[in-house]
Amino acid sequence: MESHIKTSKRKYSIRLFLVIICISFLQLQSSAQKLYFKNFIHENEKDATLSMLEMMKEAKKLQHPEIIIEKGIYHFYPQKAFETYCFITNHDDGLRSTPFPIIGFNNLSIKADDAQFIFHGLMVPFIIRDSENIHLSGFSIDWEIPLHSEMKVVDIDEDAHTFDIEVNSSYEIRNGELIFLKEGFEHNLERSICWDPKTMAVAYNTVQVTTLTVSGKESLKRFEEKLHSIYQPDPQLSPQRFQGKQLSLTAKELQPGVIRIFGHDKDLPKPGWIIVAKGENSLNRLAPAIYVKRCRDIVVNDVTVHHAGGMGFVCERTENVTLDHFNVALKEGSERMLTTTADATHFNNCRGHVELKNCLLENMLDDGTNVHGTYARVADVLGENKIGIRLGYFQQFGFDIASRGDQCGFIKEDVRFTPFLTSKVKNINKLNKRYYIIEFEEVIENVAVGDLMENLDWYPSFTISNCTIKNNRARGILLSTPREVIVENNYFSNMMSSILFPCGFANVWYESGKVKNCIIRNNIFEDSGYGGKNMAVIATHVNDSEENYPIGKIVISNNTFNNFDPYIFDLERIDSLIIENNIIEKSGNYQELNLDKKVLNVNKINHLILKNNTVTNEWEFN
Amino acid sequence: MESHIKTSKRKYSIRLFLVIICISFLQLQSSAQKLYFKNFIHENEKDATLSMLEMMKEAKKLQHPEIIIEKGIYHFYPQKAFETYCFITNHDDGLRSTPFPIIGFNNLSIKADDAQFIFHGLMVPFIIRDSENIHLSGFSIDWEIPLHSEMKVVDIDEDAHTFDIEVNSSYEIRNGELIFLKEGFEHNLERSICWDPKTMAVAYNTVQVTTLTVSGKESLKRFEEKLHSIYQPDPQLSPQRFQGKQLSLTAKELQPGVIRIFGHDKDLPKPGWIIVAKGENSLNRLAPAIYVKRCRDIVVNDVTVHHAGGMGFVCERTENVTLDHFNVALKEGSERMLTTTADATHFNNCRGHVELKNCLLENMLDDGTNVHGTYARVADVLGENKIGIRLGYFQQFGFDIASRGDQCGFIKEDVRFTPFLTSKVKNINKLNKRYYIIEFEEVIENVAVGDLMENLDWYPSFTISNCTIKNNRARGILLSTPREVIVENNYFSNMMSSILFPCGFANVWYESGKVKNCIIRNNIFEDSGYGGKNMAVIATHVNDSEENYPIGKIVISNNTFNNFDPYIFDLERIDSLIIENNIIEKSGNYQELNLDKKVLNVNKINHLILKNNTVTNEWEFN
Repeated sequence: MESHIKTSKRKYSIRLFLVIICISFLQLQSSAQKLYFKNFIHENEKDATLSMLEMMKEAKKLQHPEIIIEKGIYHFYPQKAFETYCFITNHDDGLRSTPFPIIGFNNLSIKADDAQFIFHGLMVPFIIRDSENIHLSGFSIDWEIPLHSEMKVVDIDEDAHTFDIEVNSSYEIRNGELIFLKEGFEHNLERSICWDPKTMAVAYNTVQVTTLTVSGKESLKRFEEKLHSIYQPDPQLSPQRFQGKQLSLTAKELQPGVIRIFGHDKDLPKPGWIIVAKGENSLNRLAPAIYVKRCRDIVVNDVTVHHAGGMGFVCERTENVTLDHFNVALKEGSERMLTTTADATHFNNCRGHVELKNCLLENMLDDGTNVHGTYARVADVLGENKIGIRLGYFQQFGFDIASRGDQCGFIKEDVRFTPFLTSKVKNINKLNKRYYIIEFEEVIENVAVGDLMENLDWYPSFTISNCTIKNNRARGILLSTPREVIVENNYFSNMMSSILFPCGFANVWYESGKVKNCIIRNNIFEDSGYGGKNMAVIATHVNDSEENYPIGKIVISNNTFNNFDPYIFDLERIDSLIIENNIIEKSGNYQELNLDKKVLNVNKINHLILKNNTVTNEWEFN
Repeated sequence: MESHIKTSKRKYSIRLFLVIICISFLQLQSSAQKLYFKNFIHENEKDATLSMLEMMKEAKKLQHPEIIIEKGIYHFYPQKAFETYCFITNHDDGLRSTPFPIIGFNNLSIKADDAQFIFHGLMVPFIIRDSENIHLSGFSIDWEIPLHSEMKVVDIDEDAHTFDIEVNSSYEIRNGELIFLKEGFEHNLERSICWDPKTMAVAYNTVQVTTLTVSGKESLKRFEEKLHSIYQPDPQLSPQRFQGKQLSLTAKELQPGVIRIFGHDKDLPKPGWIIVAKGENSLNRLAPAIYVKRCRDIVVNDVTVHHAGGMGFVCERTENVTLDHFNVALKEGSERMLTTTADATHFNNCRGHVELKNCLLENMLDDGTNVHGTYARVADVLGENKIGIRLGYFQQFGFDIASRGDQCGFIKEDVRFTPFLTSKVKNINKLNKRYYIIEFEEVIENVAVGDLMENLDWYPSFTISNCTIKNNRARGILLSTPREVIVENNYFSNMMSSILFPCGFANVWYESGKVKNCIIRNNIFEDSGYGGKNMAVIATHVNDSEENYPIGKIVISNNTFNNFDPYIFDLERIDSLIIENNIIEKSGNYQELNLDKKVLNVNKINHLILKNNTVTNEWEFN
């Protein structure tokens, strides 16, 4: 009996002990361990980078680190930053430096109290890689000297076809070419477009004026045939990219800060307009603000990106992302026209759910968001279940297109854009940034050199709500995911289309994915497509060799279109299209560009429902 | 009794079993496992890279792989090569591709039967990293289209000060600048010097003519003050390197393949001379032939490098290297003047013994060899035993300057170049390619920002014997190691000094190390220093703030100097200098350049012995 009691007591003690351990463990799991930046940074420290890295190193030792960054202005320079080689989708790859290397973290919360992070030179503010459960909030990102340039058009000469600009930043005229000098970076006038300070948006019909072409003249090339190779050179890559052409846009200083530009080959810009330049492709996407790769459960809220030399938030091969009150926005009181030099946000090969809510995305040099996957080209058939693939686009090098276990589809693009075969990846070996060897679980019959491959497992569902996307170059949003898409309660006003459904376009950007189910409701579209002709507010772009109805179901309901132009819908090859309860009004803000177009332009729609749409009688509906 | 027998038998069996295991193990240890390339390469394969990588992968699985490569010509292209980021000392860093990634191998022998490896574009033929006991033999390395250019001077116009060149390779004239097109690479006329086909060597007194300066004119720069930063920009780095100057050397095509060059700012080259060009610094050392890092016991024999876009053999942080019949040599029947575009061989931070024997090193665009360590600059004092260091030279980024346990010395360069303090490294953290944080075992008193640090543990003893180093730009050999150095039975004929002892020069290349004991015997020196004035055949270069006698003992005995010029020795600040039994004759091959100099020019020698030297009576000995 006593023995029994003892055993019971022992059992009880063991149980108690286990419970205590469990509780401790749970506490450890749930209760954050706080680190305060004020305890790491020294007084009057001009470069906060080393201190921040010191704190990040301490945080790495904890299970649930919560970093608290006090209100203040913090400057970060690359000289003492953490550096790592980065392949960033839709950016140029290379060594990139950061004060926030969130690499291999399992739980991390960075809570700033309205802190201002000011960057210098080529840096990536946040590199988030191979991490889970990351939460960022409460700060803004800006650059002391932005990586782009803005200059006012002060005069034009119609007869000589020249224009004069006012440049207030550091510049050089080298071999007749205007070069803008930045911290550890420089760029020329390539990729310039015009902004109108009256609207704070891209100038009306700017495609007649820009982009500026710096090198438009043919150069003299000899004996090219001596460069024979068994491989075709890629014209997108350096040095080929810069060969065969030479300077056509020359610069002459009239007085310090005032420069005359000769050799422009389009219409002259209007005096008062602001030219915004970021330099040559392949040299102008080096410093995105927040870069996320191979992660899970990322939440960013109350974060504002005022500038980045690339995208605001770029995310690849990641599961579940929420951006809430994430803004890419001009800084109050700043005289800049531009925020980021590329897309505000961008998602490639993500899965789970991606959500944008309550975001202000304005004045970017590219799209508001773009959700898609990636095609690769079959370069070699190396065995019955083994191929060599080649990434198509130079800004997708090093891309994690697939991993073991992923289901991939093969496409013969001249025949049909729907996979003729799917197979599961057994093994992938990245030989170099462009060429990978992939083994599949099964024999992959009929796969041939030239076929395309896409990853079918990595597409997310996507919601965007209560967001404003405006005043930017290019599109509002690009949607290329077969999972559920909801676009609601947003405000759009974009130079090109507000919503674009690309479909089967593998020839330039190699972006994959087709929308199967999309609801667009309760949004306001106010003046989109004002950058030039032929850009409908909501449009599809479908490859000719696609299947009959590559796009599944699109519902466009209860939206208000207050547009300057009648060209609202240009939609084709959709299985089910419902357009109902929309109000379509004429804004009168700009002169129409597409009076030859109707409001509704549809082609090859399997089931079309049009119901209760109120359309201004100034334009023909359909 | 029976039991005892049984036990004995069992013991015997166990012993036998152990012996068998031991023998098998020893056999495994000693007998190589052979792989034949013929079993990996497919018939008519134009690019051997994938097959070679397949074989390398198989070799990795073995304990003692011996790769046999059959006689033949094998082409390698970067498109399907293995790629890895490389920081290579005295080269530009970046992603580099190779068919021979000898990375993490413990025993590997590659035996080729007179195989010819032909490379295309930017590749590094051999990347050997973190490996031990590696043996390469029996092949040559060349490029189908070399990464430099050669052009004959066909005419000159003294009045207009122009010269005409014949270019037979692919070129472009872009914005008035002559650009040479290669496979995935291009370069301009920068870093050009002249070769004389009559001597197959660098042209006599070429410093009057070259190097060519492509960008010699000042450009217009404005508002530089707006680029304020708390860090001084490094003028060696891009983009600063290319700022503030513009094109002065312009090109005009007279007929296809014949180009007139305007704007040359030195003497005109002679018709018939060959101009050899490799393009701008920071863009011209991208493809060394054999690159070794963090290795031990490396043997290369019967290997010939006909070309590389960088050095022939570059080696860092490695213990014990033997190069036997390793040649950097012109290919018979080739019309090229140049082999490698940089040093034939180069050793930085090596230890143990480095030996070169029976090597022919000719027609390089830089030195025959250079054995040295590296200085870093103290950038921050972060604690009583903790500093931040900054690497000084842009082609030493990512350099393994020290590891845990290494003894480092600190120098105040304005005071004295000898370490005032030494301490052992406890921990090193490479934050980025240039800035590292190092903790030491002890308190490092008096170490201040601006001090230099060198690694005292990583200097090798060095022997060079039965080698020929000739017809190259720059020096024969540079010696900067305190361990024993022997130079014997070699033949030297170099544009600059044949043997140079640099000492305490930290302002440009940050190369460390002082010779303490060097024997130079039984060598033939035939015409060195013919590239221009003031280059003695054997010379020291000592920093002003060095200690009294930074160089220990140098013995120069039984050598023959058959030189065009009297300027044979320029030696200073040596503790013990013995010059004996040398024969010094006048070759008469070129006109003297330094008739103002004696044969022996010495300064601050603590103990000097001159004995039995036979000197032509045309020149004054001392």
